[in-house]
Amino acid sequence: MAQPSDRKRSVAVVGATGAVGEVVLRLLAERRFPVGELRALASGRSAGSKVRFAGREVMVAEARPEAFDGVDFAFFAATGSLSKELAPEVARRGGVAIDKSATWRLDPNVPLVVPEINPDALEKQRGIVAGPNCTTIGFVMALEPIRRAAGLRSVVVTTLQAVSGTGKPGLEELARQLEEERQGKAPTTSTYPTPIAHNVLPLCESFREDGYSTEEIKLLLEARKIMGLADSVQVAMTCVRVPVPVGHSATMLIETERALSPEEARRVLAAFPGVVVMDEPAQNVFPTPRDVAGRDEVLVGRIRKDLGSEKLWLWQVSDNLRKGAATNAIQIAEEMIRRGLA
Amino acid sequence: MAQPSDRKRSVAVVGATGAVGEVVLRLLAERRFPVGELRALASGRSAGSKVRFAGREVMVAEARPEAFDGVDFAFFAATGSLSKELAPEVARRGGVAIDKSATWRLDPNVPLVVPEINPDALEKQRGIVAGPNCTTIGFVMALEPIRRAAGLRSVVVTTLQAVSGTGKPGLEELARQLEEERQGKAPTTSTYPTPIAHNVLPLCESFREDGYSTEEIKLLLEARKIMGLADSVQVAMTCVRVPVPVGHSATMLIETERALSPEEARRVLAAFPGVVVMDEPAQNVFPTPRDVAGRDEVLVGRIRKDLGSEKLWLWQVSDNLRKGAATNAIQIAEEMIRRGLA
Repeated sequence: MAQPSDRKRSVAVVGATGAVGEVVLRLLAERRFPVGELRALASGRSAGSKVRFAGREVMVAEARPEAFDGVDFAFFAATGSLSKELAPEVARRGGVAIDKSATWRLDPNVPLVVPEINPDALEKQRGIVAGPNCTTIGFVMALEPIRRAAGLRSVVVTTLQAVSGTGKPGLEELARQLEEERQGKAPTTSTYPTPIAHNVLPLCESFREDGYSTEEIKLLLEARKIMGLADSVQVAMTCVRVPVPVGHSATMLIETERALSPEEARRVLAAFPGVVVMDEPAQNVFPTPRDVAGRDEVLVGRIRKDLGSEKLWLWQVSDNLRKGAATNAIQIAEEMIRRGLA
Repeated sequence: MAQPSDRKRSVAVVGATGAVGEVVLRLLAERRFPVGELRALASGRSAGSKVRFAGREVMVAEARPEAFDGVDFAFFAATGSLSKELAPEVARRGGVAIDKSATWRLDPNVPLVVPEINPDALEKQRGIVAGPNCTTIGFVMALEPIRRAAGLRSVVVTTLQAVSGTGKPGLEELARQLEEERQGKAPTTSTYPTPIAHNVLPLCESFREDGYSTEEIKLLLEARKIMGLADSVQVAMTCVRVPVPVGHSATMLIETERALSPEEARRVLAAFPGVVVMDEPAQNVFPTPRDVAGRDEVLVGRIRKDLGSEKLWLWQVSDNLRKGAATNAIQIAEEMIRRGLA
């Protein structure tokens, strides 16, 4: 019998013209994913346009159920409604939908996976696997090594999120508003309720009735599912949008069950796959969004003991389009191939 | 006897050409501070240039000890070394130096004052009064109403600080880097160790040996002195620079001694002088740096209960050049006049 990894896979990318879809196409080539046929799909609106894959142009077709006939992996980087309708169609046809939207993440029948953290969850997949929200991924990647080393009691997190977390409309909004301001005009708003240029907004996505943003609740519930956290572990969070194109950042104050020194924390973080420690304050070395843009790792710095307790502070940044989205999705497919699951 | 407030005061502004100095001059006129003679002073480098005050041009003279002869109030918005040398010269001549630098803040003989919070400290002044760091002021203005209502156990704060916190060089750095990027050039750095345009830096000021930034330690020690906090009150903080011209923001997670509902918190915050509550998430109403720029109040929003405890989250923004600097300094002088102290 041939090794499963020898076989080329038929791959579909849904939302191929979007900010994440473009990165999925680039990374499939960069990572030498065993792509046989490639289908670039999108909503009817974008069908007919072209995208680039591995040096050639690919025509974008409309994402309809039949488009998934014979597909092994379908990467969904589109709207939740498209995922809701079409991911089951992929599964029904024997393929695997790897979904970036929020649609399936909390479904008990759908694994929510960060391959470095909970790859075993893939064993229970039934044709749909969810990737977490971009903000969640950097958060759990920095938290899990600490939890494994010393247990976890609580964490307080403030995120500083890039506009590409809202896709191309977010990038366009920031660029347009900066240009308007340069010309002395008042910035116009379309994607966010108030200007993001030269500003920060304590709102990501939209508000729920309880005053939390949907983004904040995702961070909590997704982290619980991925890390298998007990309800007794307290997670407190505020999510903020900042005028940065790519790269989500966060401050995190972590209370462990057993005291963990900053030196030990640095060691366990550096040893964790996908995490890089950049932490030499004496040399002004700390990670920023500009450092992480285009990288697949989560960068961690400013690891230090809280002044009034045994808690640990840290600062982490990740490329929200790569590890926060496209990289993680492709890693899921790679892990499934490795395990002979697809 | 004439009311002390009837008399015009001789006023000096040191650092008159800087970002804060300019606002001091504007606010002295706006607030109808009883200015008799006005002396615009600066380091030798800026002497000879001109600034505007109350519709007229004023020549900037070099800040030397003799320049303070006969001065009632000297507002220092310059370097710490200038304050260290010259504030005692003001006091020796019978005037009052109101200093914005860090030089005198933690001196036990110098009151560190936010007039809405600890005006009584002014009674012990001996010719030098310190204003807190811009970051500290928004922080204590949002914290003190909560502390008075329900006591304080701990607070976790992440600041998002505007580049004008670094004065004109910070504003120039952001503008220059945005223009360089627009032209497709690599951003050059001068004020900050790494580009601030399209980026966020987990560093304000400079790092100490223990991995904390000097800005973070100021926030802790100044808040303790102003609010008279016991050592048992835990203050945990990370300070971050963001590409915003004016307006410092912060997320704050507050643990009180007695439970305080968000409704009560809103009420006590709104009733506190100098604080405005902007908090209607259902209408996307929350304060941002763009809302607060040019205002003297501290704006507070996103007041909500932590999901896993009785703690309270809030978000506050303040104009770091006004309430964070110039407004607070002038309020100190106004309060001293009111009390007959000068």
